[in-house]
Amino acid sequence: MAAPTSPQPPLDFSHHFSRVTKGRQANSLKKFYRFFAIPGIGNLAGGLPNATFFPYDTLEAQTARPDRWQPSPNEPSNITRKLDSTSLETPDTSAASHITVPHLAAVTDPLQKIDLTTFLQYGLVEGYPPLFSFVRQFARETLHPNVPYLNGPEVILSCGNTDGYSKVIQAFTNEWTPGRDWVRERESILCEEFAYLSGIQASQPKGLQVVPVKIDTQGMLPSGPGGLEDILANWDERTGKRPHLMYTVTIGQNPTGSLLPLQRRKELYAICSKYDVLIIEDDPYFCLQYPSVPNLEAAARGVPLPRDPEVHTLPKKSGFPFIDSLVPSYLQIDTDGRVIRLDTFSKTIAPGCRLGWITAQPAIIERILRITEASTAQPSGFVQAMVAELLIGDQPAKVEFMRKNRAEQKAFRGWKVDGWVRWIEGLRGSYERRMTRIDWAVISKTEMYNFDWPRGGMFVWVRMCFDSHPLASQVPGPEISSTFWVYLTQEPNLLLVAPGQTFCPTPEIAAEEGWKFFRLCFAAVEEKDVELCSERFAHAVATFWTIKSKKELEDINDGFYDG
Amino acid sequence: MAAPTSPQPPLDFSHHFSRVTKGRQANSLKKFYRFFAIPGIGNLAGGLPNATFFPYDTLEAQTARPDRWQPSPNEPSNITRKLDSTSLETPDTSAASHITVPHLAAVTDPLQKIDLTTFLQYGLVEGYPPLFSFVRQFARETLHPNVPYLNGPEVILSCGNTDGYSKVIQAFTNEWTPGRDWVRERESILCEEFAYLSGIQASQPKGLQVVPVKIDTQGMLPSGPGGLEDILANWDERTGKRPHLMYTVTIGQNPTGSLLPLQRRKELYAICSKYDVLIIEDDPYFCLQYPSVPNLEAAARGVPLPRDPEVHTLPKKSGFPFIDSLVPSYLQIDTDGRVIRLDTFSKTIAPGCRLGWITAQPAIIERILRITEASTAQPSGFVQAMVAELLIGDQPAKVEFMRKNRAEQKAFRGWKVDGWVRWIEGLRGSYERRMTRIDWAVISKTEMYNFDWPRGGMFVWVRMCFDSHPLASQVPGPEISSTFWVYLTQEPNLLLVAPGQTFCPTPEIAAEEGWKFFRLCFAAVEEKDVELCSERFAHAVATFWTIKSKKELEDINDGFYDG
Repeated sequence: MAAPTSPQPPLDFSHHFSRVTKGRQANSLKKFYRFFAIPGIGNLAGGLPNATFFPYDTLEAQTARPDRWQPSPNEPSNITRKLDSTSLETPDTSAASHITVPHLAAVTDPLQKIDLTTFLQYGLVEGYPPLFSFVRQFARETLHPNVPYLNGPEVILSCGNTDGYSKVIQAFTNEWTPGRDWVRERESILCEEFAYLSGIQASQPKGLQVVPVKIDTQGMLPSGPGGLEDILANWDERTGKRPHLMYTVTIGQNPTGSLLPLQRRKELYAICSKYDVLIIEDDPYFCLQYPSVPNLEAAARGVPLPRDPEVHTLPKKSGFPFIDSLVPSYLQIDTDGRVIRLDTFSKTIAPGCRLGWITAQPAIIERILRITEASTAQPSGFVQAMVAELLIGDQPAKVEFMRKNRAEQKAFRGWKVDGWVRWIEGLRGSYERRMTRIDWAVISKTEMYNFDWPRGGMFVWVRMCFDSHPLASQVPGPEISSTFWVYLTQEPNLLLVAPGQTFCPTPEIAAEEGWKFFRLCFAAVEEKDVELCSERFAHAVATFWTIKSKKELEDINDGFYDG
Repeated sequence: MAAPTSPQPPLDFSHHFSRVTKGRQANSLKKFYRFFAIPGIGNLAGGLPNATFFPYDTLEAQTARPDRWQPSPNEPSNITRKLDSTSLETPDTSAASHITVPHLAAVTDPLQKIDLTTFLQYGLVEGYPPLFSFVRQFARETLHPNVPYLNGPEVILSCGNTDGYSKVIQAFTNEWTPGRDWVRERESILCEEFAYLSGIQASQPKGLQVVPVKIDTQGMLPSGPGGLEDILANWDERTGKRPHLMYTVTIGQNPTGSLLPLQRRKELYAICSKYDVLIIEDDPYFCLQYPSVPNLEAAARGVPLPRDPEVHTLPKKSGFPFIDSLVPSYLQIDTDGRVIRLDTFSKTIAPGCRLGWITAQPAIIERILRITEASTAQPSGFVQAMVAELLIGDQPAKVEFMRKNRAEQKAFRGWKVDGWVRWIEGLRGSYERRMTRIDWAVISKTEMYNFDWPRGGMFVWVRMCFDSHPLASQVPGPEISSTFWVYLTQEPNLLLVAPGQTFCPTPEIAAEEGWKFFRLCFAAVEEKDVELCSERFAHAVATFWTIKSKKELEDINDGFYDG
């Protein structure tokens, strides 16, 4: 065993920055901010409106208590039956707190000052101090206590992960135009063979080449044909620069629902380190990991329970058994400082937040801060105020707070880190139970389709066996597939699912493999409808497989195009 | 007089789009949205969390009534005394409404549905329907009823004007790197000789050359040396492409406080049309126009009152005398469709909103929508919900609303367009009175500094006459200027002002002219401090001009660098 070494500073990755990003400079007006703190100073410098003129005197909300949802077990090694499968969950909205962001808070500590005078004024690019410091501490001490490089990572708030990804791409890629720029200058980005493509598609007009890496049920393959090492070792420079970026969703992978274990992470990371690839880890579902699934799936399929569950041992603990039980981020093995992680409140609070954060080594965060100054400036103060008040809570010095009786004061407290962890733990429980309500176990034994139960996230990735369809010899597979998609939307099936082609990084994958898959999301529909929809799906497949004439297929599409 | 012609479609400006912007395509997942509306459809397609799991049961606020602030006259032709100069304004916060955004609203009309199930879920890129339609109608019918091209402009919400500017620059400029790209490909942007540079500086790393246009007390000069025509007609293509973009703040120009009259607009627009320049009109202060100023200033200076005030006659009226009295946007004379206007709620609601909108011809808005999909996705649902509830208000069908008594129901109504116009009219009144509290009339007659009273916005642009300083022959002007800036921050002066160099688009202007100016903002300090600060400034100048030894100047800077 190697002797423990003292932490080293992260590597210098400035050679990865784009030309534009290298040239960015700090906003010249920002240098005056330090003078704002001179006592009694008359600030005629900033172009700020007066807070008196904000038309909001308070912002308020009824909010859930952190224990609204029931957690599921962290280590359900002996669970072989569905969790709570007989009762639907209804929230106890009577157990709620009322939170208030006042116009002016009496506290002077900027880390505690949550008021409209601050949060509705121009703010710091990295975030208003109370929320920024909460998120920073949560990222550094709770989510990622093991980041190996010296002094750990820095964070900056983002407007959600689409925005975060867009800024990271700005930071690390140059525009490239076919016919104008040298092919050898074309940049590339690695991603999973089936991937969440909204961000990637958005960066394709910049000339970025997308390079898929083969996956299995755990995620990217480190070795073997089409695996990461294979692609990087055998890269043909005549087609463009070897990829220096990887985009990956490792937990509840979208669309396949897989979970990348620690051991596999280490193998992939070592290859990225060898070939100098930066890792963009987009992790919206980090808390939605379903440890009950391996056993439940085995039980449903009537196969032996899996032995030796994956172990995720890391030296430092977060202090929260739930967090410690989760597969860790790439950050926790990031000796080089090459991981840029994207977090969002979209799945843990609400997508409408448009609020998240980016975690990476400080020199990278500094460049992203410059990009933020030049674009979004900061996430809206409205969402920052409401989330800060929810997570951090009213401070005892507030006049309104002191007027309340003791019981009310207790109810008014913010969630704090404990409450936040309890909330996401409850969310995991709810989504895990919801997922296990899918009633397809028996049907997955048929020849018509198959799937792995998702190990995390919100999606089931269904592989259709269209070659077993009665018309398979007469109608091309992709045509049967698109007709089946239309068939699903029609009476009595009434189901909307996402076609596999949507998740194919290249036209080749779409043509060869994409049409065989559909992604089904079990998160958005009402819980009572999860079973209903899965039954509808099973029924639709069964009836679709009874279709024996091409005319019937054509009629389905006719109805579609008329509508 | 020419016969009125029927409206023509806007011109095609696709040749202005950047290479990346031309290549953008619609998000491939968005095409499924139309299926979401099928009755009874089980939506397993979108990767949406369930609204049940949002931890907010309501969002609420105490909000001002629209008549909180007193308007000032629209046509104060006979005003020669300061407005309300003896009493400070204090808001009547008891006259407030309580607004509530419920978790689920009973209304089905998407234009009226303001609830958390909608606004905290993923939304449409252009904005959630109720707020988007309010803003669109306000822009098309109230603010700009005269846009001359066929069918008028389109709008899209932005995350404020920094974000809006960043997107417009993405739409219309290509990256350019010195030493790598041909000089002839370098793009340029026109702006005022003294300008708000945050956005422009942010786009300089993209290689964009900044080209200043000479200004006078009204704004850009159409003709004469350094005027717009002079620059464009005599452009030297060897230094890069002739500018195809203009960035301009025409109302309450930042930093000079000028107001570009309609006649001047027409002259500048004709030149832009002749040389195919797109106009980016950044207009955060559109409602802060101060018609009392010409008379007040003349009275204070003891000169004859100005005759023949500028007239802004346009054929269609908004229905609001206040709006009709304002200098109109470039949009209202935009026959070609070459104006891209940036609006923000930063100065009319609060900067922390990070919410605004872009108005331009539909084909331009469509490209900006594609850029938005790939970056911010949408402004936060929290601010959209709170602003929608403020402006549009609770709908009668809501259960909570029906439970209230009649008086409460009245108090709960949203502002509607009438209320919104009344609010910004009151804001204008408050800022106009606040500005006239500046007590410099008599001092402006001295030789030490001079300025024009601002015709709009939040700033006074003060020109210092450092050549009248006792040490002018021994110490370079820029050095006296920077020492004076430090002197202002020290006891007993305690003033922070923005140095003129901060607003200089080129190093040459900064070196030759910038150091002679300071920008003073009267908006941010408390109203009672406006007079105090102006007195402090006058006193600081007077005492600074008594300094007769270089040693004293050096001592001032010493203290600064120690601090």
